[in-house]
Amino acid sequence: MTAASADVRVAARQLITPERLAGFFAPRSVALVGASETSGWARFIVAASSAVGFTGPLLPVHPKHARVFGRPAVPTLRDLAEPADLAFILAPTQAVATVIDDAAAAGVRNVVVLASGFREAGAGGVALEESLVAAAARHGIVLLGPNCLGFLNTAAKAAPYALTVPLPLTAGPVGIALQSGALASVLLAFARAHAIGVSTVASLGNEAMITTADMLDYLVADEQTKVICMFLEEIGDPAAFSAAALRADQAGKPIIALKAGSSQAGQQAALAHTGAVAGDDAVVDAALRQLNIIRVDGVEELLTTAALLGYDRLPAGRRMGVLTASGGACDIIADRASALGIEIPPFSAETTSAIAAELPSFATARNPLDVTGYVLANARTTTLTAIDHALDVAVEEPGLDFVLFTGITIPDARPPDEAAAGLLEARVDWIAQRMASAPIPVIPLAPTCVDVTGYARQLLGKHDIQLLGGIELGVRAIHNALRWRDGRGQVRPLPPRPPAPPGAAAAWSEAAARDLLTAAGIPVVPGRVARSADEAAQIARELGTAVALKINSAHITHKSDIGGVALNLSGDAAVRAGYQRVVAAAAGHRGGNEVLVTSMRTGGIEVLAGVTMDAGFGPVLAVGLGGIWVELLGDTCVRVLPAGPADVAGMLAELRALPVLQGARGAPAADLDTLARVIAAIGELAGSLHGMQAVEVNPLWVSGDQVAALDVLVVAEPRSDTRAAGPGEPALSG
Amino acid sequence: MTAASADVRVAARQLITPERLAGFFAPRSVALVGASETSGWARFIVAASSAVGFTGPLLPVHPKHARVFGRPAVPTLRDLAEPADLAFILAPTQAVATVIDDAAAAGVRNVVVLASGFREAGAGGVALEESLVAAAARHGIVLLGPNCLGFLNTAAKAAPYALTVPLPLTAGPVGIALQSGALASVLLAFARAHAIGVSTVASLGNEAMITTADMLDYLVADEQTKVICMFLEEIGDPAAFSAAALRADQAGKPIIALKAGSSQAGQQAALAHTGAVAGDDAVVDAALRQLNIIRVDGVEELLTTAALLGYDRLPAGRRMGVLTASGGACDIIADRASALGIEIPPFSAETTSAIAAELPSFATARNPLDVTGYVLANARTTTLTAIDHALDVAVEEPGLDFVLFTGITIPDARPPDEAAAGLLEARVDWIAQRMASAPIPVIPLAPTCVDVTGYARQLLGKHDIQLLGGIELGVRAIHNALRWRDGRGQVRPLPPRPPAPPGAAAAWSEAAARDLLTAAGIPVVPGRVARSADEAAQIARELGTAVALKINSAHITHKSDIGGVALNLSGDAAVRAGYQRVVAAAAGHRGGNEVLVTSMRTGGIEVLAGVTMDAGFGPVLAVGLGGIWVELLGDTCVRVLPAGPADVAGMLAELRALPVLQGARGAPAADLDTLARVIAAIGELAGSLHGMQAVEVNPLWVSGDQVAALDVLVVAEPRSDTRAAGPGEPALSG
Repeated sequence: MTAASADVRVAARQLITPERLAGFFAPRSVALVGASETSGWARFIVAASSAVGFTGPLLPVHPKHARVFGRPAVPTLRDLAEPADLAFILAPTQAVATVIDDAAAAGVRNVVVLASGFREAGAGGVALEESLVAAAARHGIVLLGPNCLGFLNTAAKAAPYALTVPLPLTAGPVGIALQSGALASVLLAFARAHAIGVSTVASLGNEAMITTADMLDYLVADEQTKVICMFLEEIGDPAAFSAAALRADQAGKPIIALKAGSSQAGQQAALAHTGAVAGDDAVVDAALRQLNIIRVDGVEELLTTAALLGYDRLPAGRRMGVLTASGGACDIIADRASALGIEIPPFSAETTSAIAAELPSFATARNPLDVTGYVLANARTTTLTAIDHALDVAVEEPGLDFVLFTGITIPDARPPDEAAAGLLEARVDWIAQRMASAPIPVIPLAPTCVDVTGYARQLLGKHDIQLLGGIELGVRAIHNALRWRDGRGQVRPLPPRPPAPPGAAAAWSEAAARDLLTAAGIPVVPGRVARSADEAAQIARELGTAVALKINSAHITHKSDIGGVALNLSGDAAVRAGYQRVVAAAAGHRGGNEVLVTSMRTGGIEVLAGVTMDAGFGPVLAVGLGGIWVELLGDTCVRVLPAGPADVAGMLAELRALPVLQGARGAPAADLDTLARVIAAIGELAGSLHGMQAVEVNPLWVSGDQVAALDVLVVAEPRSDTRAAGPGEPALSG
Repeated sequence: MTAASADVRVAARQLITPERLAGFFAPRSVALVGASETSGWARFIVAASSAVGFTGPLLPVHPKHARVFGRPAVPTLRDLAEPADLAFILAPTQAVATVIDDAAAAGVRNVVVLASGFREAGAGGVALEESLVAAAARHGIVLLGPNCLGFLNTAAKAAPYALTVPLPLTAGPVGIALQSGALASVLLAFARAHAIGVSTVASLGNEAMITTADMLDYLVADEQTKVICMFLEEIGDPAAFSAAALRADQAGKPIIALKAGSSQAGQQAALAHTGAVAGDDAVVDAALRQLNIIRVDGVEELLTTAALLGYDRLPAGRRMGVLTASGGACDIIADRASALGIEIPPFSAETTSAIAAELPSFATARNPLDVTGYVLANARTTTLTAIDHALDVAVEEPGLDFVLFTGITIPDARPPDEAAAGLLEARVDWIAQRMASAPIPVIPLAPTCVDVTGYARQLLGKHDIQLLGGIELGVRAIHNALRWRDGRGQVRPLPPRPPAPPGAAAAWSEAAARDLLTAAGIPVVPGRVARSADEAAQIARELGTAVALKINSAHITHKSDIGGVALNLSGDAAVRAGYQRVVAAAAGHRGGNEVLVTSMRTGGIEVLAGVTMDAGFGPVLAVGLGGIWVELLGDTCVRVLPAGPADVAGMLAELRALPVLQGARGAPAADLDTLARVIAAIGELAGSLHGMQAVEVNPLWVSGDQVAALDVLVVAEPRSDTRAAGPGEPALSG
């Protein structure tokens, strides 16, 4: 970015205030620039505006046509009688700049730019986009896009939105921001099917001015929005994004994200093991978790989770009561809940007997509850059924945090029998009231994922009852909501996106890497470099333990793969022979004659602590069991730095292999506080190292409160003041 | 089961032939016994019969009413003018026996029994059910249920089915058998929503006569059925079930199963580690895999997989072409496919240039393909769009096994513009023809999981095009179908359900367990029991290696937990001290003075090979890395026995830790053939051991082609001829 373009960005940023965005997303008049009747996009905008009940004028602007969509058109924005609140620019790429000038002249302060061919189209497009932003900023114009499809806002009843809106569209609590425009219609189709109400839905395009973070801020401020859904392809500005996520967390508005790209091959250099375990997607996962953004796998999970968080009360815990009329449904719910760590505790004796009183004799009053199909034995003559009585009782059970209720099934059409319809409607009234008066949340679940239509939609809508779409999605949504609740209050902003790497990074010799750690106060296993077999034997005698020999060369990183390592040597003869063997093995790899002689450590546990530089998020720490287990087991916890000792302790606690660290089956337990402090220090050191690409300690040996780096890899800008430890050193390093 | 009841079972089994079942599920007249107009069930049967177009008579039978549902009723089945093909018995539990007698007298040969209160209700119910079956069998009557809701058969247009049928019901290739009746309506609701056609749907209830295996056989024989869905709570007769699964595999009819119970706590004794890893659900998983039955997690996945297998051509491999009009959809599809091992290879140069020719200039012709939304720039005037041209080309790409096509989106209502409707219909015609003529399968995918209704349903139905419901479910269904294809031809029947355990099983001393293995030719590490410190030292000298000392007592199974193990001892003094330490530690646990002295083995890999007795499936083998890794990593492969060396080699190949066995990072590789042979021998030995509850070798040490059991646990009926190895033995065992 040039200095001039940086100035432009600053000017653009200054325009984007909460008040300005609130106005942007609530236009009362919209000019359609370049709209002709043959444009599918223009027709969609007209239809969408009608769908949301837009009452303001849609003002066609076209250089050739006098009338468009039955409305009188003017040639340019300058020709409008009064400035539109917003101009939706459908003009082709090369014409957009002129339209911006027209908008400025006409006093139009907000524009949406549909055209592609900007930043996403390569270098020429980048320049075009920068000049576009510069022009807009100069004139105080706020711009959404380019390369976007606009937005709709159900509360403001505005929809400058160039895509199909599946009808009926329900207004409601779910705000949606997407980095892929076409996907919006997919989300709206699912939302429509389940009567999930939306507030503002925006396609962000290239985010030339209004960014994902801005959109988050807007949705956090928007009264109508209670929960935020995002489709993310890239997190361009981690600092701004995380600051917005922090504000959302503080405001109690959950963010749920479908982040694409988990299949992309990691961009990390393969030098360090850390790169393999902290690939791009694992880092995104870690970053989103640190921001308490719930990551989901698909559109259906995204919106079902949003429906739960937008409509239902949030459970205070994981203890679920389950009420069904099907043993099979009980089984499947129990299986899914168990897989996700949601508990289904037994009912208390009081609850059991109160529920049993209303059940057929052969049904069992337990959690999960199957009231059985005997309700069907006779035509209904009472308002409430067995499952409703169970609901009435279960919500008072002190051992539950919430109730999953599958008792609401409403036909698409009103029953022709007026008495039956009356009973049904009275029953739904009662359920809605009981849900509202219940001490704990009641989450209504449809038995499978099908559309809510007709009479059911109307009856449920009247009471704002959201039926979650099926067991699989519903239980997963509950799990997601509980994860969000558990993560609240722990969000901290992320550092800014790191600058491009200097390109001068290289692997250091291990001796230089050990010196770096030692200088930072990180315990390193004692040892020194030998340049002859005699010297190796001498060092081994001084160390007084069995020793490890490792070739010491910046040219060789995977030492053991080439035979450059000899372990557990005792006695002069063995050490000398080991030295010769290691030097000989490395000879074909420019290995030189330097061999690091270090004390062996046995009986402890070997851990990996590695930091790599992620292109998007900066330094990232990975922690796991060391050695071969790193790659085989995928049992690694990843975190975007900075991370203090308490954060690292939390990472260790998440490892499946935690019992190993805790001394499983007789091995000495690791002092986890000490270990966490050492690992945090490694992270801090790596974060401050110029040109850092990797700092990896593997293994980091721990036994009780003894911790020592046994093997160290540093890939960073070479330092003039570092060199391999030489024979003249007065003492053993480490 | 008494001998008499066994005779009844045999008589009942003889009635169940393929011809008999074909007739059972296609009745042309149905008597409704005990039907009154206030019965919800009876009303459902009437409605369901009408839904499927049942043209035969529905004959009410009721002791009190002269007319039911506007039809004349008779008091008993004996009073019918001619025997009904099938009697649906709605009468209460205690009246069923009388109705069976009436049926016999009236010549009714097929009955469905709705009433509960039989086997599922405890001991009294078991007896009632047995007498019911006996009466039916005596009269040559075939019975479905009791405690079931009946069935519907769209091909035969019959529906003696006491549950709501969501309309419209589509006839088609999916056969459904359920062990939970109420769940049928859930499945039918999802099938209706996605226009997935069903053949026969049956609720099996208590399976007193017609079993799950019978139903499988019926569906395999049924011409209309191409794919079979099951909801299973229990696999009561593994031998019959697996034989039926084998016939389905041979017939090329995939079975997909939703098996409940994965959340149930394992019933295994916790004595052996194997019990923890081969819990009930892991065994069910293994058994279903061995039978090439695709296990799914939910109703939606069950039916979406069935839709794919029932309507689409089966891909020959995992190389997928992806055609979309949304970059976001591309991303999500790629992520899901990558997670499930489905490949999205690059297009060939020819395909790329042919696709590029029809794309807008800024779109990239790659796999996955986003043709972009520019198709919307102008109203359509041609039949085919960019995505159709891409389809035309991609199906000829030799590097693909199939194409995932997201280009079909049809509105709920026919476009009012006749020209637009004509273009759309011509386009769908063309797509259907191109799918049929394509050299590789084309799988059409809806962008999200919403109902297919109205015009879309009609237009797609005309061409038998199944739109899979959304990316998540669709890609998973493809994965499931490919798993089924991969598993074909490898099904072998399972052994019969094992008899109840004798109750006399106990843990053997380790010396006795070692003798058992040695006698079976399984290599055991050399060692012998010592009864004094002197003797221990003597044995250690004879062994000539460092030794392990382990308390030898049938009372102590977790030896190391109580300090009953000392490892890696060398030299007389250390061995003597070790003996004293181990005996002292075990003194509080009835440990006695016997200590097993065995050679230490180092430098190899430690494996777990364990067999437990599963109550449902008999002996089950679990294989994984040994030691603490068994529990920590859950990286274990489980298989219902028998398993030959090739089967075991396949199990080893499935372990995540396989690279460890293959010598990851310099450790000596295990000879996997030798290891598999030894493990298979352990399985064979365990399978033949009387009262076997567990035979576990952990660790089984392997280094190259050297294999040795280091620690052996046997829980089985004690043998009179086994005793701890004594001091008088002439040689070291093992």
